[in-house]
Amino acid sequence: MINKLVENIKRTKAPIVVGLDPMLNYIPQHIQKKAFAEFGETLEGAGEAIWQFNKEIIDKTYDLIPAVKPQIAMYEQFGIPGLVAFKKTVDYCKEKGLVVIGDIKRGDIGSTSSAYAVGHLGRVQIGSKTYVPFDEDFATVNPYLGSDGINPFIDVCKEENKGLFILVKTSNPSSGEFQDRLVDGRPLYELVGEKVAQWGENHMGDEYSYIGAVVGATYPEMGKVLRKVMPKSYILVPGYGAQGGQGKDLVHFFNEDGLGAIVNSSRGIIAAYKQEAYAEFGEKHFADASRKAVETMIADINGALENR
Amino acid sequence: MINKLVENIKRTKAPIVVGLDPMLNYIPQHIQKKAFAEFGETLEGAGEAIWQFNKEIIDKTYDLIPAVKPQIAMYEQFGIPGLVAFKKTVDYCKEKGLVVIGDIKRGDIGSTSSAYAVGHLGRVQIGSKTYVPFDEDFATVNPYLGSDGINPFIDVCKEENKGLFILVKTSNPSSGEFQDRLVDGRPLYELVGEKVAQWGENHMGDEYSYIGAVVGATYPEMGKVLRKVMPKSYILVPGYGAQGGQGKDLVHFFNEDGLGAIVNSSRGIIAAYKQEAYAEFGEKHFADASRKAVETMIADINGALENR
Repeated sequence: MINKLVENIKRTKAPIVVGLDPMLNYIPQHIQKKAFAEFGETLEGAGEAIWQFNKEIIDKTYDLIPAVKPQIAMYEQFGIPGLVAFKKTVDYCKEKGLVVIGDIKRGDIGSTSSAYAVGHLGRVQIGSKTYVPFDEDFATVNPYLGSDGINPFIDVCKEENKGLFILVKTSNPSSGEFQDRLVDGRPLYELVGEKVAQWGENHMGDEYSYIGAVVGATYPEMGKVLRKVMPKSYILVPGYGAQGGQGKDLVHFFNEDGLGAIVNSSRGIIAAYKQEAYAEFGEKHFADASRKAVETMIADINGALENR
Repeated sequence: MINKLVENIKRTKAPIVVGLDPMLNYIPQHIQKKAFAEFGETLEGAGEAIWQFNKEIIDKTYDLIPAVKPQIAMYEQFGIPGLVAFKKTVDYCKEKGLVVIGDIKRGDIGSTSSAYAVGHLGRVQIGSKTYVPFDEDFATVNPYLGSDGINPFIDVCKEENKGLFILVKTSNPSSGEFQDRLVDGRPLYELVGEKVAQWGENHMGDEYSYIGAVVGATYPEMGKVLRKVMPKSYILVPGYGAQGGQGKDLVHFFNEDGLGAIVNSSRGIIAAYKQEAYAEFGEKHFADASRKAVETMIADINGALENR
């Protein structure tokens, strides 16, 4: 899957990923009304509204982008019907040729990590049959529990040619509370980055490892250091746009080959029609606004990479 | 909910929690056969087998115990039908008066943490209506992202009188890789414990805080230190039994009042019938074996507490 991700990025010339993190208040009234008319103001109604919203954005952007990153919390908050919408979204994106990064931030130990891995990236055995429950291509994983937490995910990834993005330095203001604490004079996130590089050596694709890292766009200096610590790991970079990061801040997350990083934007793309800059599209044509926002983002990042 | 947990513990005189972490190979053949006869060897069949297995264990143990801790990964691995079984289990345990600790180990930032909190502990707004999607009483949460990750959970907990158990020192062998690293001469887990104590001050119950901690039974010396760092936080202690912990190792996780800790056993209870010590019950009477294992565990821990 890392090979497919790299291929998709080269083909689209777009080192970006669209975060499918729908909140009900992002979803245009006409979609909500239609879903509620059919299913009522219920969890099912919310699930349907999310799914229709996602579908239209995917239809209008899939040819421009290599990957999507649905944030499962935004679906899980609507219980079972929300998770049904998550699964529909994953399947539809894969049909469209997109790489799907499940932003699930799971993490546990031993057989419990195996269960998450099987559920999201692998196949589960039931009697004589096997099933692929959620079937994302990549999953985000939390490293706090150490190798016992990560290795069961890697085992499943090896079987399935799938991959991980492990949280190293997150984009939020308080990420430093624990991640920046100095251990033997070096911040904890660097030690985590070193482990990601080691874990990654065990599951290499052609050019890059299947085991990547999450490093927030809001910390460009740390991105520069971590790029060197994990030369063969793809870096998934959240925090572009709404959280403050811009193309020019992100050049050091990339390797000299122009690869090695993929920048996520969620609200900035899927709720673009709510921004002044895209107001001309109107609520009805929200997905056209998303397409325009994708084009602008790609131009911003590629422009910065050309000028570095 | 922390008050209800403390009440339940006092009433049952059992500072324990039963981990409902079903694996298909724990589930007796007659239950699997019946479920597969009805639903086939499908995700639905697996969900049904899990649910029937849980129900029988709950029916045979609920009067002895204060709380259960379903591990959501074991359900999530069976996709949507697995999560339906999770929800049925949560609801049934609550009907029986048990406190339900959702072992979900979620953790993200801002609106994403809010979404997890709403989905698992709170209520979600859909148009003019509200729903309680999963509705556990407590959830386990990962602290790696710092206060931005935890505070949105606490906000929901305050509204709903619900609580958290935050990972501090996990029970697995490699938990020290990051958690034990020295920061200004003190291990990271102590700093996390201090933050738990601070977060806990903002959401106090009568005797204890709604914000507890997870500390593994496999690290009794660290439990002793952390008990003092977080005097008002309940400690959820995994790793008893199958992972190696015993009653005598656990006394220092408790305060002098005999409260302050709740010890989890999963496999040791729910798959007790597979152990030599409970073989007399046979596969058919697996839930009676679980009841016996619960009684033995309570006696072990209370005996150790009396003799300390």
